[in-house]
Amino acid sequence: MVIVEEVVGLRLDRRINWLGFHLTKSWHAKIFMIFLNFIRTFTPERIIIAQNTRLTARLLNTYTSILKPKTMANDKDAFEVKAVNTTERLAKLRSLFQGGDYDITAYVIPSEDAHQSEYTASCDARRAFISGFTGSAGLAVVSTKDAALFTDGRYFLQASKQLDHNWTLMKQGLPDVPTWQEYLVQDLPKGSKIGIDPTLIMANDAKALKESLGKIGSSLVSIENNLVDLVWGDARPSRPCNPVIVLPLKYAGRSHTDKIAKLREELSKENYYGFVVSALDEIAWLFNLRGSDVQYNPVFFAYALITKNDIVLYIDENKLSDEIKDHLGSSIRFRPYYSVFEDLRNLQDKFKSDNQKLLISTRTSFALALAAGEENIETTRSPILDAKAIKNEVELEGIRKCHLRDAAAVINYFAWLEEQFAAGKKLSEIDGADRLEKFRAEQEDFVGLSFDTISASGPNGAIIHYKPEPETCAKIDPNLLYLCDSGGQYKNGTTDVTRTIHFGTPTAQEKRAFTRVLQGHIAIDRAIFPKGTTGYLLDVFARAPLWRDGLDFRHGTGHGVGCYLNVHEGPHGIGSRITFNEVPLQAGMTVTNEPGYYEDGKFGIRIETLVFVREVETPHNFDDRGFLGFEHITLVPIQTKLIDASLLDPIEHKWINDYNAECLQKVSPFLEQNSSGLRWLEREAAALK
Amino acid sequence: MVIVEEVVGLRLDRRINWLGFHLTKSWHAKIFMIFLNFIRTFTPERIIIAQNTRLTARLLNTYTSILKPKTMANDKDAFEVKAVNTTERLAKLRSLFQGGDYDITAYVIPSEDAHQSEYTASCDARRAFISGFTGSAGLAVVSTKDAALFTDGRYFLQASKQLDHNWTLMKQGLPDVPTWQEYLVQDLPKGSKIGIDPTLIMANDAKALKESLGKIGSSLVSIENNLVDLVWGDARPSRPCNPVIVLPLKYAGRSHTDKIAKLREELSKENYYGFVVSALDEIAWLFNLRGSDVQYNPVFFAYALITKNDIVLYIDENKLSDEIKDHLGSSIRFRPYYSVFEDLRNLQDKFKSDNQKLLISTRTSFALALAAGEENIETTRSPILDAKAIKNEVELEGIRKCHLRDAAAVINYFAWLEEQFAAGKKLSEIDGADRLEKFRAEQEDFVGLSFDTISASGPNGAIIHYKPEPETCAKIDPNLLYLCDSGGQYKNGTTDVTRTIHFGTPTAQEKRAFTRVLQGHIAIDRAIFPKGTTGYLLDVFARAPLWRDGLDFRHGTGHGVGCYLNVHEGPHGIGSRITFNEVPLQAGMTVTNEPGYYEDGKFGIRIETLVFVREVETPHNFDDRGFLGFEHITLVPIQTKLIDASLLDPIEHKWINDYNAECLQKVSPFLEQNSSGLRWLEREAAALK
Repeated sequence: MVIVEEVVGLRLDRRINWLGFHLTKSWHAKIFMIFLNFIRTFTPERIIIAQNTRLTARLLNTYTSILKPKTMANDKDAFEVKAVNTTERLAKLRSLFQGGDYDITAYVIPSEDAHQSEYTASCDARRAFISGFTGSAGLAVVSTKDAALFTDGRYFLQASKQLDHNWTLMKQGLPDVPTWQEYLVQDLPKGSKIGIDPTLIMANDAKALKESLGKIGSSLVSIENNLVDLVWGDARPSRPCNPVIVLPLKYAGRSHTDKIAKLREELSKENYYGFVVSALDEIAWLFNLRGSDVQYNPVFFAYALITKNDIVLYIDENKLSDEIKDHLGSSIRFRPYYSVFEDLRNLQDKFKSDNQKLLISTRTSFALALAAGEENIETTRSPILDAKAIKNEVELEGIRKCHLRDAAAVINYFAWLEEQFAAGKKLSEIDGADRLEKFRAEQEDFVGLSFDTISASGPNGAIIHYKPEPETCAKIDPNLLYLCDSGGQYKNGTTDVTRTIHFGTPTAQEKRAFTRVLQGHIAIDRAIFPKGTTGYLLDVFARAPLWRDGLDFRHGTGHGVGCYLNVHEGPHGIGSRITFNEVPLQAGMTVTNEPGYYEDGKFGIRIETLVFVREVETPHNFDDRGFLGFEHITLVPIQTKLIDASLLDPIEHKWINDYNAECLQKVSPFLEQNSSGLRWLEREAAALK
Repeated sequence: MVIVEEVVGLRLDRRINWLGFHLTKSWHAKIFMIFLNFIRTFTPERIIIAQNTRLTARLLNTYTSILKPKTMANDKDAFEVKAVNTTERLAKLRSLFQGGDYDITAYVIPSEDAHQSEYTASCDARRAFISGFTGSAGLAVVSTKDAALFTDGRYFLQASKQLDHNWTLMKQGLPDVPTWQEYLVQDLPKGSKIGIDPTLIMANDAKALKESLGKIGSSLVSIENNLVDLVWGDARPSRPCNPVIVLPLKYAGRSHTDKIAKLREELSKENYYGFVVSALDEIAWLFNLRGSDVQYNPVFFAYALITKNDIVLYIDENKLSDEIKDHLGSSIRFRPYYSVFEDLRNLQDKFKSDNQKLLISTRTSFALALAAGEENIETTRSPILDAKAIKNEVELEGIRKCHLRDAAAVINYFAWLEEQFAAGKKLSEIDGADRLEKFRAEQEDFVGLSFDTISASGPNGAIIHYKPEPETCAKIDPNLLYLCDSGGQYKNGTTDVTRTIHFGTPTAQEKRAFTRVLQGHIAIDRAIFPKGTTGYLLDVFARAPLWRDGLDFRHGTGHGVGCYLNVHEGPHGIGSRITFNEVPLQAGMTVTNEPGYYEDGKFGIRIETLVFVREVETPHNFDDRGFLGFEHITLVPIQTKLIDASLLDPIEHKWINDYNAECLQKVSPFLEQNSSGLRWLEREAAALK
């Protein structure tokens, strides 16, 4: 929470009583902004940001956009300005608002690609291009007058750094901040025509948006050519076309024919014509193929259509070797990537004459729904998403194995860091991340990283999805907390681990916060719950110890993780997102356990371990429901020197010693004899007294 | 969960493989029932119910209705049969299915009255009359062929005892058991005409039901004269008309004019014509009046209409003394109770011409919505419900006070029971309940009980809403667990307390289960959570310790309690009901903390304490949200001899000793010197080692 105390000598009280006015309405904010812009013209080199006054979220957004181009009094708290100048891009984009067959006053730019991917190829990073904000989640709305960027708590700090003065940052989740949909309805004039690329919005979202816009006379205009791509022009990278590889059965555990047969069973139950697979990781999983078109996600650009008699893979055939074609077999037809739209359009008459519906997932694009005809589709949570979430025994064993090697890499890295500091060396956050990648690359079956390493020293740890950049990143200060969130892709699994460590002596405040986070982590790890329980309900276990101190964290407690696939996967999760209440946790699911605490400008703490959902034996079995618990898979010690042992109860105390001992026992075979890594592990795994 | 091992020598395996058939379809159940009826004609005096085979819920329902008229081999586990013969009543009801202007094939009989009261006057106990089942929650559907009774886990055992062979018990919440709405759609023939008294169903429920029935060509027929009343005839009790009393400001804390003014503020915000108050406790609260028309609930039959300029109380004027009229003032008009329908019908034109809507609560009857015109109403959660839930400081202080006296009564009772057993006396459950009522009646400001005392020895404790009856109830066995759930109405508050105690030596199993329940109770009591958190989320804290042993309980963890009003009140609660996720807990709310565990045929455990939601100080205040916690108000010791101390962590250990010490400190002034009650309290409050 960014907080304002003094603006060029003008003191604001707690209720933003400014010159006697309570700034509670949006026009107050506008006047306030005019005033700030005015005084900025004359004096201020310095605008002080401090900790005891609070602005409403809307006011804060406005205010932040003015603050950014200036530096702050206190270097440590300063907003480093590294915003892209978007003035020209926005002007170009606005000049395209009148096209041959449309005339819009605003344009929506989601961050996803046509497959609703969270991470995108650089050619699809349209929202980053137009706004300058590079975080993984966010959406931009550019209207004739304004430009607004919507993102969540993970990215408040990063976005406020990266957006230039053209942009208003909309902090999702804070009170009084509209969602982007509410913004289109409430903040843009009634009767607006709002343009969008229909491949970049989900069909259901488009439908809901059309309805709420319709009520105020506004409308959603689907524009086939992406306007940001037109602005981008030749500078836009071309779509990747990397070769696809086969994931052998010894890693996948189930053949693609088996998976497709199972899917067809589901389809025939309700007599659907077929199912369009549009999520890239679902296509990779279904066919036991992997690719490298998107950084960190081993997927490739494709669509698939599975019907009773037909399997069509829409893919650039240049990606496919003969080996791949052999693996897939003769029952699979290949069609060019973009032909899916044409083929669906041609099927419209068939859907109608056969009175059959095409099943699409809730995450399929509006463009696909339009191609098939909105009246011919039925929407569901993807059956492939659900099937993929439950790992088979081969996958589970692979994931266990790669986590041992991954733990060895992380342990070697922490030991190396310690040695460097002991030798008086200075290292940047990027130096650290690069060295960690090298340690991972030494491991068997390593393919690449599963996401950008978050190597964050001190206050950078409070930027929840911080990514150190070579030119701007900080030195790792051994006297501050160091948060390292990283992961690898291995042929037998995907890892995602966060440890927060200290190379010197932590403060009492850091220890107390760390211990509260740890207690939440332990509560999740030890949870036992009946089948049918959702991650929505378990989430509070992770927060309860923090709540006791009046603390909390602004992200979910856990997400599913793919098996040599995307590091974020659904449909389940542990968190306060209400959709997590629709999916009970089931044996065989993976989920991360990653509570945290972030003190803006000071430090960030997160402890993240991958766990499996497993059946557990209980003394009784109420209602014959069956009970579930977790098995922890990540085995990197949790630093006991960061623990305030007086806060732990005996069960928690035993847990931390058991966990660290398990790390020592299981990971030491993967470390070299007499290596600094092994010595570090032995020391860190010693029992907390 | 009732479980079948052997039926007249015919063994059923775990999957109800009977004579080689897997009984999984509904027609299987029918064949099975015919078979059972057949063999019943010849032999069985005894049908054995035991613990290791399980029927599907639907089969179990069918089966239970056949079992009931027979006694079981084991007296302790036996279903005692005390069913009302409903054959004649049902025949009469069915004979009324063809009326002057209707022709129905089924009739729905809810348990609520026209005010959606949970507890009803005897004249409104239509569902109990027609079915014989007297529990507080349930709904009957009588069709030309079948009669089905729907109730929840609290009443499975009681209902299976009280329903005769005409009835099928539908156990709500078990898998594969339809809700009554689903039953009307799925189990009755398509095109059915289903009758209902529109005063007995909520407007929104009727609307939803009409829609889902419409889809299969069935319809809901509103019948003004209640058909069960016609069957009941002269035997039906007349509607009570007891005098109303004023609740002075020293108890109410806020004047009725103040409450009405606040309500009018809400109404004028959205320019509503007015609000119809139909819930009896809301009327009592709004006008600071109390009555005695419904047992245990200090309310009176009335409706109210609050508009900008008018206040109309629809009430039998015989209830009103001059004192009441003085209290209410001259601005209130009185109209006869039933005139509300006529008045609303007459207002329809005005609603239309003024283009104003009438606000009604979501719990208002379909009949009232029809009277006002469905197009003229807007439905909302009652603003009075929300206002009433947050107690003012005068109410909070009153509730605290009456709980001290109430605790003294309960303590005196437990001490007396112990003395009786020591003297070798035999006491029935009813003897106990009566003596407890006497102890309560000795207390200052006592008005009456707040619900039927649950005085339950051993296996009866597993019947969650057990009510001992003079002719049939058990003796209290000092060697079994004794569960006592009771409460009183006092002029300054309403109490609701459950303690489970043992007069001898509990078994290890009883202690372990009791300790798990206690740990859940402590987890709720100690919870600290940010503002905005709902009771839906806190519920898991109460269950987590039970889950660890594979246990659970089939009821909510807590409900709101009125202040000298109904013992159950909303809108909030702690439990898995999804509506509890719509209402954050707020400072000033009351809620019970009552986890339990029930071992069918053996014992029941529940520990229930009333708590206030209060602001708490935390070391930090994340996002300036403010944090809440609970203050326990019920102060009756929790028996340490029932605790397995090895399961407690040090914080829980300290909690129980602190709690019992607080009981001693605060309640001993209300006990006589040298009384057995004081001695009992002193002994029970001694620290657990």
